Amino acid sequence: MEKLFHLLDEMYEEMVEIRRYLHQYPELSFQEKHTPAYIAEYHHQLGHDVKTNVGGRGVTARLKGEKPGPVIALRADFDALPIHEETGLPFSSTYDGIMHACGHDGHTATLLVLAKALNRLKNQINGTIVFIHQHAEEYAPGGAIDMINDGCLDDIDVIFGTHLWATVPYGTVQYKYGPMMSAADRFAINITGKGGHGGTPHLTKDAIVIGSQLVMNIQQIVSRRIDPIQPAVVSIGTFEASNAFNVIADHAKIIGTVRAFDENVRSFIEKELETITMTTVQGANADAEFHYSRGYPPVVNHQKETQLISSIAPQVPGVQHTEEMDPIMGGEDFARYLERVRGAFFFTGAMNPKWKVAYPHHHPKFDIDERAMLIAAKVMGKTVLSY
Amino acid sequence: MEKLFHLLDEMYEEMVEIRRYLHQYPELSFQEKHTPAYIAEYHHQLGHDVKTNVGGRGVTARLKGEKPGPVIALRADFDALPIHEETGLPFSSTYDGIMHACGHDGHTATLLVLAKALNRLKNQINGTIVFIHQHAEEYAPGGAIDMINDGCLDDIDVIFGTHLWATVPYGTVQYKYGPMMSAADRFAINITGKGGHGGTPHLTKDAIVIGSQLVMNIQQIVSRRIDPIQPAVVSIGTFEASNAFNVIADHAKIIGTVRAFDENVRSFIEKELETITMTTVQGANADAEFHYSRGYPPVVNHQKETQLISSIAPQVPGVQHTEEMDPIMGGEDFARYLERVRGAFFFTGAMNPKWKVAYPHHHPKFDIDERAMLIAAKVMGKTVLSY
Amino acid sequence: MEKLFHLLDEMYEEMVEIRRYLHQYPELSFQEKHTPAYIAEYHHQLGHDVKTNVGGRGVTARLKGEKPGPVIALRADFDALPIHEETGLPFSSTYDGIMHACGHDGHTATLLVLAKALNRLKNQINGTIVFIHQHAEEYAPGGAIDMINDGCLDDIDVIFGTHLWATVPYGTVQYKYGPMMSAADRFAINITGKGGHGGTPHLTKDAIVIGSQLVMNIQQIVSRRIDPIQPAVVSIGTFEASNAFNVIADHAKIIGTVRAFDENVRSFIEKELETITMTTVQGANADAEFHYSRGYPPVVNHQKETQLISSIAPQVPGVQHTEEMDPIMGGEDFARYLERVRGAFFFTGAMNPKWKVAYPHHHPKFDIDERAMLIAAKVMGKTVLSY
Amino acid sequence: MEKLFHLLDEMYEEMVEIRRYLHQYPELSFQEKHTPAYIAEYHHQLGHDVKTNVGGRGVTARLKGEKPGPVIALRADFDALPIHEETGLPFSSTYDGIMHACGHDGHTATLLVLAKALNRLKNQINGTIVFIHQHAEEYAPGGAIDMINDGCLDDIDVIFGTHLWATVPYGTVQYKYGPMMSAADRFAINITGKGGHGGTPHLTKDAIVIGSQLVMNIQQIVSRRIDPIQPAVVSIGTFEASNAFNVIADHAKIIGTVRAFDENVRSFIEKELETITMTTVQGANADAEFHYSRGYPPVVNHQKETQLISSIAPQVPGVQHTEEMDPIMGGEDFARYLERVRGAFFFTGAMNPKWKVAYPHHHPKFDIDERAMLIAAKVMGKTVLSY
Repeated sequence: MEKLFHLLDEMYEEMVEIRRYLHQYPELSFQEKHTPAYIAEYHHQLGHDVKTNVGGRGVTARLKGEKPGPVIALRADFDALPIHEETGLPFSSTYDGIMHACGHDGHTATLLVLAKALNRLKNQINGTIVFIHQHAEEYAPGGAIDMINDGCLDDIDVIFGTHLWATVPYGTVQYKYGPMMSAADRFAINITGKGGHGGTPHLTKDAIVIGSQLVMNIQQIVSRRIDPIQPAVVSIGTFEASNAFNVIADHAKIIGTVRAFDENVRSFIEKELETITMTTVQGANADAEFHYSRGYPPVVNHQKETQLISSIAPQVPGVQHTEEMDPIMGGEDFARYLERVRGAFFFTGAMNPKWKVAYPHHHPKFDIDERAMLIAAKVMGKTVLSY
Repeated sequence: MEKLFHLLDEMYEEMVEIRRYLHQYPELSFQEKHTPAYIAEYHHQLGHDVKTNVGGRGVTARLKGEKPGPVIALRADFDALPIHEETGLPFSSTYDGIMHACGHDGHTATLLVLAKALNRLKNQINGTIVFIHQHAEEYAPGGAIDMINDGCLDDIDVIFGTHLWATVPYGTVQYKYGPMMSAADRFAINITGKGGHGGTPHLTKDAIVIGSQLVMNIQQIVSRRIDPIQPAVVSIGTFEASNAFNVIADHAKIIGTVRAFDENVRSFIEKELETITMTTVQGANADAEFHYSRGYPPVVNHQKETQLISSIAPQVPGVQHTEEMDPIMGGEDFARYLERVRGAFFFTGAMNPKWKVAYPHHHPKFDIDERAMLIAAKVMGKTVLSY
Repeated sequence: MEKLFHLLDEMYEEMVEIRRYLHQYPELSFQEKHTPAYIAEYHHQLGHDVKTNVGGRGVTARLKGEKPGPVIALRADFDALPIHEETGLPFSSTYDGIMHACGHDGHTATLLVLAKALNRLKNQINGTIVFIHQHAEEYAPGGAIDMINDGCLDDIDVIFGTHLWATVPYGTVQYKYGPMMSAADRFAINITGKGGHGGTPHLTKDAIVIGSQLVMNIQQIVSRRIDPIQPAVVSIGTFEASNAFNVIADHAKIIGTVRAFDENVRSFIEKELETITMTTVQGANADAEFHYSRGYPPVVNHQKETQLISSIAPQVPGVQHTEEMDPIMGGEDFARYLERVRGAFFFTGAMNPKWKVAYPHHHPKFDIDERAMLIAAKVMGKTVLSY
Repeated sequence: MEKLFHLLDEMYEEMVEIRRYLHQYPELSFQEKHTPAYIAEYHHQLGHDVKTNVGGRGVTARLKGEKPGPVIALRADFDALPIHEETGLPFSSTYDGIMHACGHDGHTATLLVLAKALNRLKNQINGTIVFIHQHAEEYAPGGAIDMINDGCLDDIDVIFGTHLWATVPYGTVQYKYGPMMSAADRFAINITGKGGHGGTPHLTKDAIVIGSQLVMNIQQIVSRRIDPIQPAVVSIGTFEASNAFNVIADHAKIIGTVRAFDENVRSFIEKELETITMTTVQGANADAEFHYSRGYPPVVNHQKETQLISSIAPQVPGVQHTEEMDPIMGGEDFARYLERVRGAFFFTGAMNPKWKVAYPHHHPKFDIDERAMLIAAKVMGKTVLSY
């Protein structure tokens, strides 16, 4: 085991180099081209059995251990976001409006270098390790479902993955048995009223007033209709009805998201949203179209695998604190793998303690403490070797 | 008098030609160039005393009668709207996105040809007639105020004007003593909440929910706080907060209009809007900027002049119906003249009875029954000669 | 004519005595007993043709003039209100909780003494005068409809009536052609949700939240759905849902009133109220019963009769000011008579100019300047003699 | 241990008799008289060291074991509710409008008979057992705080208690480490608007509309302002403004409850409620009084004691299922003891599996499966002996 840690320590500089290289050339979800090519080439160099274009733009690589054993998958995502970087880092994105603002560059660097280290230890490995490099985690329906449909999980026994988390201090590892990250759905409501002159409201059906009433009514779903001990969120990101100041709106567009950890709650919210939408517009003799599209399911970790992470993490050098985290209301399509095979997802603290401000994920000034990659690699590597 | 009517009948074809010519070359408010030049040239040809660039882009022309008497102004506006014409008429606008969709082309043609007819009768005229061709009626603060400040009313004793009205049948003339058209103000509210991730509403101040609550609260101004016999309207034309579906809005923009006939009501609504805005955002620990800008004052007709119109109209050939109209909630900067000198504004029905649909003013398919110009010219002409 | 005024001046003290007597013995609507008996006896003494129990508790008396002519009705109402008097007047109500707080004591005294004066002038009277003393004006459906159904209007050609108005200065007479007082309807909404423990809202349907949402939604009827130049009011007087602080309401009761001057507006509001109620409760999967009961129709005065009042009033001694009033949003079942025969209702100012506060009608401290009765009698008397 | 179980089985009939006796003579919180006397007498008979009027109406009894050891408290509450019983049971309440509708009769019977059984085993007992019979659990601020202030916890090392729970099946025992039952606070808001006639809303400040707006705004506290993973409830039980249908309300009264498990959340809700209340009324130029009174704190169980219950329960005959429960949003002043000494509270399932409907606590048809008392006695008894 110490061998693994030692190897990884030696390779840390390469890890940083890879991460910084990827950071400069971010690619949007479902448009990744150079990143998967880079990944595939790296594994080729290691002699791994590489598949490209898995489920579209994904890459898998297999490292067969010298002894028989389970097939264990490790997953890292590699897409970036439509955000214009403002970090001022010397290795900032070279593309206007695209940025690795969620740390997937770090995930990829971590997994590549871990692959290299494990490759050196293949004689110690029981079974097979599959490196799943996933595209398009940021954009529902996500790359995971396509990679799964393309067979990436077919002989997998168990899967592990981590997220470098920039608002949790470096040195902390967080795990959570059961629901850890929420389902994240999207809804869109198009209200059709009847436009007209601002001075004659009685000849119109005012789509802005109808929409505002709808937004107020929607608040009751969480405040009144869901069991208080069931976390749930309904948030609206867009309310759009843009007319001249003296024109009453014929249309209003409302777009939002639903978060929940429980399938029944999720279905209930969908139904209530539709009921409230349709009755609200009927009360104004207006119409609406209601669309609800399911995003990622909740990330629900398995017990044994979560315990494994929680018992291994404290043994890893650099880890000062291991804790059970509260579930969070963000989505992650690692959920797709966990619906099908056993496994666990965990968070690796990546906030540099010296920072005055830890910019959250998806922020133009987002950054990670790169040392977190080393911890992530060690926890995953040791987990694989221990399984 | 019959002489005037006869002359106008003879000149009707020219009136139509001018209207159709102007219709093809509409110009936006405060950007009029060719239209005022055309008007000035027309009056020059008649030997009138012409001033251009009055208050910016306005034109005035004076016709001195051979006998002494009052100075009477007739006003027509000549600007067009940022609307793309869809009438399919052979003389449609030749400019994409600009259209005479309010009949100002007709107003101008009416006044020009009436000027020509009155010129022929100058030996019968007691006093002076001033033709006020106003730019920019459609866009507050409007051209009237600038023309007035530039002296166009300086020696005027009384003023008359009309609007061709496409939803009132041809043959009808409408008058109204006292408040006839409403004040039309504009307000803009910029709400500043605090943005964030859709899954963590507690870390944000949701500008869309605050804005929706504000829209609902604003309804009470008219429903609860204004004397029910005082007509008043608060309409919102724009509600804008456009973010990704999973992002909570940091800003929302609300823009609307206020209509009232009474200065106290107008001031009261302004005050209430501000109070409701500020307390609503305070309830969410958020902020807002509130802007209120006064548009045109109400059009308030003078008694004697209104009675003159109402007594002359029934004597005009083609007028089948003269009636006192209900006040309307639309604004018109003719109001500016009536604040300063006596006068009256009236409506000339311009809906062709054979139309299946009478498209309202500012509609891409708006049109007028051109014969209404003849009635308008006769009513105004006879009013001038009778005063 | 001066004879009439002289007679009334002489009888003013009696008028005051009668008013003060009646004031001490007020009787509630539909429970009047001594008042109609007193009235009948008074007319008996004058030798008038008296009918009692007209439409329940009404009284009519006929005075036949010596010359032929029209049948003219004068109406006064005589019921009191369930209010506990706090005026401190020496002739205060002797009944706890019942008070002449609307001036009907004054109306009755005025009409009785006017009857006595006209009786003395019967040789000057062309036609017949019918004194309609109406019970139950304060309580819908009101006494008028029953008296009419019982024949009180059967041979009537025209009707007049007045209201002493305690917030208009003594010396003023107000008239209004067309709509003068509004229709006044009542609605009641019973919301049935599902009760439960305050800590488990998801197991309930919270009738208080549903009711509150309904109240907010109702505001839009007036603010958005009715022509701004059409006066209309929807007010809610009762919102009742009283449970322990930690119990969620299963029921809520909402009771209110609708005011309008136009039959279409009235019907429209009824329909919208029902639509909004039913869709609001459906949005919460709850139920509601909606009841709407029409109260008095609007008081709509006839033109000729209104002009008569407006021309006579200025000639009456004591009248310093005659004016066209704004319509008011209060109901009055004099409307019933005007639906069937020609006539006019007017207001007689009864606010003493020395009062510091003029308490409004239905206030426990309501009072009238008694001199207004004399003006009311003279205006009505002279109107009758002039018709 | 089997000795204890055997004794309790033998005494089960007495337990039932006591419960049924108490059920017939329920007494309201802070008005208990016969019940504490009965309890005191029972312990006297057993020779226990009894204190009465502890903190008002509480009773404590001490049983000293023959060996030295810790001082362990067991608590049962004995007050009833202002509910009219509708069970139809032969031993129904003999008092109109008072009922043991929460099972405190069963709690008392359980503890008394357990005391008798433990008394027989006093030679096996290490330390002292204190039986805390608490009055007034149903009515904040509750009897616990007064009993504590009167010294009932002074030498106690640990405390245990249970609630018979009528909606959890007989045979189930539920435990929960950490927050188990919520804080339960009360707020009251008195809105002062300005009353007036239903037809003149502009002269009023409509307290019903203000109150309704407030209710809607309050929904956002839970829906938008609290961390979704933090359970919280704001429920309103009373909305009261009762006027004639045509009178606008000058006052409205809103009373409700707040539930939370976390002290910060509780304080935050109090603050937000006040802010929303005051800004809402300010938006209508009205006033309000806001009162917030803290009820019971959350019941937060200690780890070691909870584990003890969870390990003992499965060994008790009759217990078929032991489970970690979800926290519930109801309050319980057992919380007061746990703020001061170690201990645990647990639920003993008391729903008879044959019932078609299990009426919830505080329902007029509430009942318990009496066999649950035996389980409760055995779990508590064994816990005491094992500690």
